[in-house]
Amino acid sequence: MSGPVVTAERLLSREDLDFLLFDWLDAIDLTSRDRFAEHSRETFDALLDLSAQLASDQFASHNTLADEHEPVMGADGKLELPPEVGIALKAFIESGLLAAPFDEAHGGGQLPNLLTRACLVWFQAANAGTSSYVLLTLANAALLAKHGSDDLLRTWLPSLLDGSAFGTMCISEPDVGSSLADITTQARRTEDGSYLVQGTKMWISGGDHDLSDNIVHLVLARTGSPEDGSRGLSLILVPKILSDGRRNAVTLIGLNHKMGNRATTNTVLAFGDDETPGSAPGAVGYLVGEEGRGLHVMFTMMNDARVGVGFLAAGLGYTGYLRSLEYASSRRQGRPTAAADRRFAPVPLIEHADVRRMLLAQKSYVEGGLALCLFAAKLVDDEATAPVPAQRFRATRLLELLTPIAKSWPAQWCLEANSLAIQVHGGYGYARDFGIEQLYRDNRLNAIHEGTHGIQALDLLGRKVLADDGQRLREVVALITDTVQRAEQSERLRDLAVPVQAAASRLLAVTDVLAAAPREVALALASTYLEAMGHLVVAWLWLDQAVAVDQRQDRFSQGKRAAAAYFITWELPRTAPQLDLLERLDTTVLDTSQDVL
Amino acid sequence: MSGPVVTAERLLSREDLDFLLFDWLDAIDLTSRDRFAEHSRETFDALLDLSAQLASDQFASHNTLADEHEPVMGADGKLELPPEVGIALKAFIESGLLAAPFDEAHGGGQLPNLLTRACLVWFQAANAGTSSYVLLTLANAALLAKHGSDDLLRTWLPSLLDGSAFGTMCISEPDVGSSLADITTQARRTEDGSYLVQGTKMWISGGDHDLSDNIVHLVLARTGSPEDGSRGLSLILVPKILSDGRRNAVTLIGLNHKMGNRATTNTVLAFGDDETPGSAPGAVGYLVGEEGRGLHVMFTMMNDARVGVGFLAAGLGYTGYLRSLEYASSRRQGRPTAAADRRFAPVPLIEHADVRRMLLAQKSYVEGGLALCLFAAKLVDDEATAPVPAQRFRATRLLELLTPIAKSWPAQWCLEANSLAIQVHGGYGYARDFGIEQLYRDNRLNAIHEGTHGIQALDLLGRKVLADDGQRLREVVALITDTVQRAEQSERLRDLAVPVQAAASRLLAVTDVLAAAPREVALALASTYLEAMGHLVVAWLWLDQAVAVDQRQDRFSQGKRAAAAYFITWELPRTAPQLDLLERLDTTVLDTSQDVL
Repeated sequence: MSGPVVTAERLLSREDLDFLLFDWLDAIDLTSRDRFAEHSRETFDALLDLSAQLASDQFASHNTLADEHEPVMGADGKLELPPEVGIALKAFIESGLLAAPFDEAHGGGQLPNLLTRACLVWFQAANAGTSSYVLLTLANAALLAKHGSDDLLRTWLPSLLDGSAFGTMCISEPDVGSSLADITTQARRTEDGSYLVQGTKMWISGGDHDLSDNIVHLVLARTGSPEDGSRGLSLILVPKILSDGRRNAVTLIGLNHKMGNRATTNTVLAFGDDETPGSAPGAVGYLVGEEGRGLHVMFTMMNDARVGVGFLAAGLGYTGYLRSLEYASSRRQGRPTAAADRRFAPVPLIEHADVRRMLLAQKSYVEGGLALCLFAAKLVDDEATAPVPAQRFRATRLLELLTPIAKSWPAQWCLEANSLAIQVHGGYGYARDFGIEQLYRDNRLNAIHEGTHGIQALDLLGRKVLADDGQRLREVVALITDTVQRAEQSERLRDLAVPVQAAASRLLAVTDVLAAAPREVALALASTYLEAMGHLVVAWLWLDQAVAVDQRQDRFSQGKRAAAAYFITWELPRTAPQLDLLERLDTTVLDTSQDVL
Repeated sequence: MSGPVVTAERLLSREDLDFLLFDWLDAIDLTSRDRFAEHSRETFDALLDLSAQLASDQFASHNTLADEHEPVMGADGKLELPPEVGIALKAFIESGLLAAPFDEAHGGGQLPNLLTRACLVWFQAANAGTSSYVLLTLANAALLAKHGSDDLLRTWLPSLLDGSAFGTMCISEPDVGSSLADITTQARRTEDGSYLVQGTKMWISGGDHDLSDNIVHLVLARTGSPEDGSRGLSLILVPKILSDGRRNAVTLIGLNHKMGNRATTNTVLAFGDDETPGSAPGAVGYLVGEEGRGLHVMFTMMNDARVGVGFLAAGLGYTGYLRSLEYASSRRQGRPTAAADRRFAPVPLIEHADVRRMLLAQKSYVEGGLALCLFAAKLVDDEATAPVPAQRFRATRLLELLTPIAKSWPAQWCLEANSLAIQVHGGYGYARDFGIEQLYRDNRLNAIHEGTHGIQALDLLGRKVLADDGQRLREVVALITDTVQRAEQSERLRDLAVPVQAAASRLLAVTDVLAAAPREVALALASTYLEAMGHLVVAWLWLDQAVAVDQRQDRFSQGKRAAAAYFITWELPRTAPQLDLLERLDTTVLDTSQDVL
């Protein structure tokens, strides 16, 4: 199957993206900061144009093909991928987008993170699998730039930025998924200061391939004793090819076959190989950051990757929305009211109320999800470059709180958007020929990788909300109240403002109840908390978008108001029964013994 | 990939099935009716044993393989399927299960529908794709037995019941999905009373293959004029091979490639072929029932097929639940409270509260979904064989009301169960090697085929609830109230009874509001109505199960109580915001112009 033709207009709405970036988030204001002074609306526009074009021409064009021809291990033990994957990645690298976010000193373009993300989401919407190599390499290089020694930077960063090396992160092991304290891979310091790494890592995306000359693995490994748990972990850079050209002892020993995201090789890697006589006793690696700080250092990359997962989910949801909207506008089927009256010709699907409901729901999920991720992406810029220290501090705190939501909310609701896109297409949506079902398969990964839904929930409630007695939460609620107050100035937004404020106030009250409860009882409800707070945050951002277009009367602003109204009247109320469960510290689950399941 | 080994214990819980059939639904009482007098607990048990064994040995064993090797069109234009599919179907036919539900006069075993369904769901849980051939053939034969002339019965029923012919239903066309009034396939009566059929049918499951010597298509075709809409449709039996051994003009012209359910060929069929000079001007067919009554006749099969879809969804959900329960009980990962305290060994996943939540939710969905479908299946028996006419009449009315729910609720929530089964497995759930993701892909079809979710919603609200001024609905609510009153006799069930009664009363009140509203406004909310009523019905059936085990103290009854408590405290409250939208006749969707999407 060649798959559908997916033009840039079917990937994302540029009008919406421009609105979110320039009207809503005031991206141009970033150019007043020293780091971004060389940039302007023109450079931003040019990069967005380039991204849209390249994403549709080179990435969307082989999305079906790469799904159907997943990586296989050839007879020589090498991974084989369709050539289109490599061609697309080469085009991406040559466009300069890979180096764009990095320092000029490293040959980069000092593009703000907000704009980098806005460029990348075109590629994510176009092709989840192929774009992952880019995302992983960027995150890998960003970590290295932040934590690597000068030596490491000199040796490895240029190859990552010119695309001759791709990056990975190696965390999970066959028996260690979410429980990082149990990591068993060992790293032993040698006399010359390098490390020898031994162990097996699993679920390693991009772990092996011939798309780049080299692969730079960032490996979480144990330098301390097992008793130290996660405090005994260090981050070790392990290249596939050493700087002297020798092959390192990193061996592809398995390949996972996934439901979606198939263009991304997903591997089991053996570091070191002491079973072969005479072979190296470990893979050679180099410490990044300090010993024992591996988890902390890795989380620079991980937090970034989590927002990246949110973008991927939003991008896949967005293209599904646009494609089902187009289908519903052209496909004629039935008549809206009296179904048997054949005096009238069949109408486009979109005229059926239930189809319009499915489109409006998708719009609210995907534009809401994209807005959420862009909001988080701007916080990354503010954290690094906001003019006033207090702004930077505030950005960090907000970002910490919102990261688990920016990761998990799109993973849940933009997947639901893809399910609705299938539903709008009917049987055509379930058939592979039309490309919609692939979006749903690709998107299902996003609630799993880079920390499952449940892990995000524990992070939000345990490490973020309860850890500082709700201080960060109150800061978010203050922002919500600010939006509510602006909305209340508008006749037509007043009714939407009230339930948002009510839900926010109720979340605060419920949080107090959780804070006073035994930790085990509170944390057992973490997923419910995550979902309720996620819906509240997105309702707030919808209200805020409605405020931003309140003076406009055009088609675009009417669409924003309709989606805001839908989200606040149809979606936000879902949180009420969730908040009820939290408020009464429901223990139905805790009370259920595992033996009776 | 060979796929996981799935024993009968991993398909369904026989203990639960026995409880539902014999304790809850009193299946043995059916044997007091003349038609089923030859049966007993022993014959039922033997057939259930046989089904469990055959389903795991012959159907589950090639589920992965058939998913990976979907039907392809060979060079000779014939469809190629893995031989295991045919072997399994042959074993099924030889077991006698295919003919079991039919009259003794036709060589059948007069097995009650309730037991037939309980046998079939093992095969559906084991292998959605391969079991579909059986389900379609049974539904096809049942329609023929009910509506076919003696001549037709004599000619075609024996071959369907001995498995030498398989059956299909041919409704959709490339441009006609849900809108049956627009069907364009023509059937022209000839002098000898047979018909010539011309047109193209799409999405035809089992439309072509070499698994059986013949294929009997039941084709909805137009015998009247286009202006007659659905009243101009008749049902025509069109065999692939005519009774004199000649090949009929039914041509495979396309093959749809699906996300799941891949073992079932999904075809585009051309009936008649007037483009080839000298070829037959149409496919030869025979009228089933009366001219112009095609839709009515087809709906005998369709309603049955809709409950069958519910069973398929429940079966797929059920096996996913059992497999994720087993995984969570054996896989060790992390520690429940203080994650960093490595003095303790990692615990099985099931000890984490959030994992237990995902298992309990699955249990409530899949056991609830199976109970719902079995409840509907018994109504089919009552409709045909209940001793008193009033009971039969009541069964018909209840079945009419519950069919769209029995179809759509499991399709929605047992799919969600499969998503949770993936989530419990983490990365292993997303990898194809473990077989869980296939369940999710297979199950996604169930909200689409045999009438989409939106079509079920219009059927429930428009044709069932509002059509008789809520009379059928009040009959269901009377049953709910009866269960509630029994639950209120029990100290420990009283708290669960109250919210069920409250939701039921509220649904009645909301229905009055909808009945008084403009039809367009009411029907625009049909999906919301379907989902709210679905959750209420399942909450009722959970309460009823809890009542049934109330005197028991064993592990099984504790599990039932836990799932009932979970469903009524965590799930039923989801209906409150839905009922709010219905009560205030929310027009957010209707008010949204398609231009602003």
